[in-house]
Amino acid sequence: MTYCTAIKLKDGLIFASDSRTNAGVDHIATFRKLYQYSNDERFIVVQTSGNLATSQAVFTKLEQDIKNNSEKSLLEAHSLFDAASIIGTHAREITKKSRELANKTEGFTSSFLLGGQIKGQEPELYNIYPEGNCVSATEDTHFFQIGESKYGKPILDRSLNYTSSMKDAMRAVLVSFDSTIRSNLSVGFPIDMVTYRADSFTQPVGMRIQENDPYYSQIRATWSEGLKSVLSNLPDVPDEYWRW
Amino acid sequence: MTYCTAIKLKDGLIFASDSRTNAGVDHIATFRKLYQYSNDERFIVVQTSGNLATSQAVFTKLEQDIKNNSEKSLLEAHSLFDAASIIGTHAREITKKSRELANKTEGFTSSFLLGGQIKGQEPELYNIYPEGNCVSATEDTHFFQIGESKYGKPILDRSLNYTSSMKDAMRAVLVSFDSTIRSNLSVGFPIDMVTYRADSFTQPVGMRIQENDPYYSQIRATWSEGLKSVLSNLPDVPDEYWRW
Repeated sequence: MTYCTAIKLKDGLIFASDSRTNAGVDHIATFRKLYQYSNDERFIVVQTSGNLATSQAVFTKLEQDIKNNSEKSLLEAHSLFDAASIIGTHAREITKKSRELANKTEGFTSSFLLGGQIKGQEPELYNIYPEGNCVSATEDTHFFQIGESKYGKPILDRSLNYTSSMKDAMRAVLVSFDSTIRSNLSVGFPIDMVTYRADSFTQPVGMRIQENDPYYSQIRATWSEGLKSVLSNLPDVPDEYWRW
Repeated sequence: MTYCTAIKLKDGLIFASDSRTNAGVDHIATFRKLYQYSNDERFIVVQTSGNLATSQAVFTKLEQDIKNNSEKSLLEAHSLFDAASIIGTHAREITKKSRELANKTEGFTSSFLLGGQIKGQEPELYNIYPEGNCVSATEDTHFFQIGESKYGKPILDRSLNYTSSMKDAMRAVLVSFDSTIRSNLSVGFPIDMVTYRADSFTQPVGMRIQENDPYYSQIRATWSEGLKSVLSNLPDVPDEYWRW
């Protein structure tokens, strides 16, 4: 499995993906699941989870389209909605073909997140379904997750909103990954993380965070201790809860 | 869906279940998913998640067996392992029959947790799979979850171990439910909770915790504030994480 999350805030966008892929616990590998497509007038990040062969075929198509200056290239798309639709179309077609070749009616699906900004337009974030359609993040629904999303959802639900600061959100994202990695073997290091400040049109270098990263270790330890202290300072269980 | 958890600690056992069932979001109902079977020499709690018809049929069989003083009754079983096997057998047979009648090869499955103590034996806790077999909790794996288990797993993973106090564990369980209920519509109030002190052979009355329960509300608020404060006191994001 995989865990990817992307957050759209007033101040910018945050993307984070793990990099473990597995087909059974004895077939584990590290693959990048976060790619950046940027030039002077656009910044685009794409993340993926699901069938690795389908995801890789989609990324290969995206690269080919860019090389061929195709009008379907992410660097030529007129809007991020168009860019999301390009990915959706590729994904749907590749899944369809794999199913036909395998003579199956299910499986071979991948999901994608696409976020970024094109000059003259607002920053946007899309969740692209295996069927090829997509939904856009809003001020109310300001983050998306794909893959093993449940373990790390409560902390994002509780701690973030659209106006949260980028630094607060980055820390919450790291905690969300820590919760997921602790509870689920199929999500693993390193974590790829990219942050983009709205309207900056910089091409962020991004971080690759390893398990022994000093800052991550600090976050992990401080969070763990903090949680324990909050838990032990919760109001005492009243006597009527102990009827035995 | 459902969320049930049961914890085996050095000092005793804790059981908690939500009570929402749904078949689509427009067909929501409240059903008890936690039952107690006790007499002077044994204390047994059974929890369930999965297909409601299968689960109810299993509980009906268990009641009939008790009424008929059957040797397959939970009140007659020689050990908790035997009790777990009785439930597993009922569940497997009911699922098999439902599939045959519906002409399907899948579906109609339920999972169960069974915990308690029989005089002269140790307290035990079993996770019973739809196939009818079961595993027992140990000092290392001291809690089980069935149903929507992922949202509420990180807090239990992080905060509890076999020697945790009953009160700490009860609070962690309430937080685990709060995380799940906030993040997933299919899990809902009231929460049924039963705590049993090892070797006491009391028959605990159990609590039914409603959403507006004053203690639960206090836990919820204190936890939420505590988390936010831990998050905002995490070490600052270093500059090298901001390469843009």
